[in-house]
Amino acid sequence: MSESNLEQKVKEIGEQGLLQKLHRFCPPDMIGDDAAVMQTLPEQSLIVTTDVLVEGVHFSDRTTSPEDAGWRAAAANLSDLAAMGATPLGITVGLAINGDTAVSWVEKLYQGMNDCLQVYHTPIVGGDVVRSPINTISITAFGQANPNCIIRRTNARPGYAIVVTGIHGAAKAGLELLLNPELGKNLSDSEKNTLIKAHQRPKPRLDILPTLQEILSSSCLLSSSIPLAGMDSSDGLADAIIQICKFSQVGAKIERSQIPIPPAFPNWLSPEQSIEWVLYGGEDFELVLCLPLEIAESLVEKLNKESAIIGRITQEKTVKLIDSTGNHADEILHLSQGFQHFK
Amino acid sequence: MSESNLEQKVKEIGEQGLLQKLHRFCPPDMIGDDAAVMQTLPEQSLIVTTDVLVEGVHFSDRTTSPEDAGWRAAAANLSDLAAMGATPLGITVGLAINGDTAVSWVEKLYQGMNDCLQVYHTPIVGGDVVRSPINTISITAFGQANPNCIIRRTNARPGYAIVVTGIHGAAKAGLELLLNPELGKNLSDSEKNTLIKAHQRPKPRLDILPTLQEILSSSCLLSSSIPLAGMDSSDGLADAIIQICKFSQVGAKIERSQIPIPPAFPNWLSPEQSIEWVLYGGEDFELVLCLPLEIAESLVEKLNKESAIIGRITQEKTVKLIDSTGNHADEILHLSQGFQHFK
Repeated sequence: MSESNLEQKVKEIGEQGLLQKLHRFCPPDMIGDDAAVMQTLPEQSLIVTTDVLVEGVHFSDRTTSPEDAGWRAAAANLSDLAAMGATPLGITVGLAINGDTAVSWVEKLYQGMNDCLQVYHTPIVGGDVVRSPINTISITAFGQANPNCIIRRTNARPGYAIVVTGIHGAAKAGLELLLNPELGKNLSDSEKNTLIKAHQRPKPRLDILPTLQEILSSSCLLSSSIPLAGMDSSDGLADAIIQICKFSQVGAKIERSQIPIPPAFPNWLSPEQSIEWVLYGGEDFELVLCLPLEIAESLVEKLNKESAIIGRITQEKTVKLIDSTGNHADEILHLSQGFQHFK
Repeated sequence: MSESNLEQKVKEIGEQGLLQKLHRFCPPDMIGDDAAVMQTLPEQSLIVTTDVLVEGVHFSDRTTSPEDAGWRAAAANLSDLAAMGATPLGITVGLAINGDTAVSWVEKLYQGMNDCLQVYHTPIVGGDVVRSPINTISITAFGQANPNCIIRRTNARPGYAIVVTGIHGAAKAGLELLLNPELGKNLSDSEKNTLIKAHQRPKPRLDILPTLQEILSSSCLLSSSIPLAGMDSSDGLADAIIQICKFSQVGAKIERSQIPIPPAFPNWLSPEQSIEWVLYGGEDFELVLCLPLEIAESLVEKLNKESAIIGRITQEKTVKLIDSTGNHADEILHLSQGFQHFK
């Protein structure tokens, strides 16, 4: 904690005192019982995901403000729900906190979480605050999904189109600009800000779910249970495609020129650096979806221009990056080889 | 960790390696997606609770085996569900782990959790494993409850009977016997084992929920939404009564002689020591319920003989411990005064 010694510390108000201060981030009717109560829609499946973030391992005051750490923690969990096709119901926050931490740091962390959650109408419904030598945040997010529209890693079928809901590589570029500001000397302020914002305030793509539902309904496909495949790209675009292919026992052909990239990249980075960040940067929190072509085309048409069909699922179980312009040789992407190749 | 240096450590197999080993504790269809999927019953409310446990703060190899730490962590969360009247659907486990921890320690922890969860047919549906300087376990449990039968701290009404589902003080006595074995020199092995087991393997009182439901159904009360009040006694019997009274804006009269206590206590402890452990010992994970007298009487009749009606909710907002045998003066219980009085 780089907080002033004059600031009130958690140990001065205790866990109960801190809990009192955090109550303003929860709906009033959620406070006081052994557990939170929520209403779910009938005929929906319950979707649950959990993440643990440790200070010094997953976040640090050196690179991330507490507000941004809070936003990113909430966004990562909501992104996991989006990746399953689920609408969020709420999150619980388990906080293990060092007594020397400034109370204001914890409040800023919750403010950042809340800023993200409010965009997606998601309440903090419960939690726990305990003392610990190391600040640790455990978030469990739960949501609900139509059982016929759950997006799974195992559902990709040969012939499906591979859709990305937006740009990849921006979050990594933003982080690099924060760590090495001189990297951005040839970028405009607006370009730098866009990339840094992509790192600090990533947006979980819950916004695409109603559009996807609408397409499935209007195609009379909602009740016929077309398998939908996908996951989020929190660990990178290449990771998402490879994981989906592994779990679905299929392969993929990705067309290099079709992958949307940050507009600042071409005049700023070498093609090698650009494709490394796009494929392996991670933390863009976009969705990588594998869908029947007709649905994929409707989806891309209705989403903003940053979404795109970038390839096809194949029977052959390799993940190939191809370049129909002929500028680059075909490559087979493996997670480990990929990383080695690009480093 | 008091583990041998020869044992395999978490850092040797990594987080992914550890996750692979822990998969055997999860249903196979839960593994691989961004989130877990569960079916819920229609017309039920979703109930969610979360707890964070930190090594050295909430558990320690010095007093608790990893199996017992796992059992107690699972039991505490299931008890929170029971306290709301909810049947468990599953738990998620977020594990932050020091790389020097023995892999076998983590497996024993999960074995203990699983041993407890299996009794209550509750799966581990998801989780996260990350590295951290300090071993930390975050559990989120979720269950479902009939919206008309949710047990809340705010629902106690003057005239309600106060029911305890079992004995209090045993878990505290068991812990003291583990810390100071010479304390038990006048106890039989069977008495010692019963008390120690109460500390190591507490049982969440999910078993009473079907009985309570049955009574409400047969009284035609299920659909008329009689307010049910209660919570678990994880922080002690006195704490539970005081919290319920505070949240319901009522008071209580507790009849000292009606509180079920461990059979070993009268010939072993002074009356002062005995009532201290019974009221303030904590971690017995019984339920303290406040119910209309008719329902309370039926419930106590159907539960085992260790349950009892111990008092009444009053309009007057004090919590009084009274002794109709005249051996002890009446006392007003406050959380802080109570602790001071008894220490």
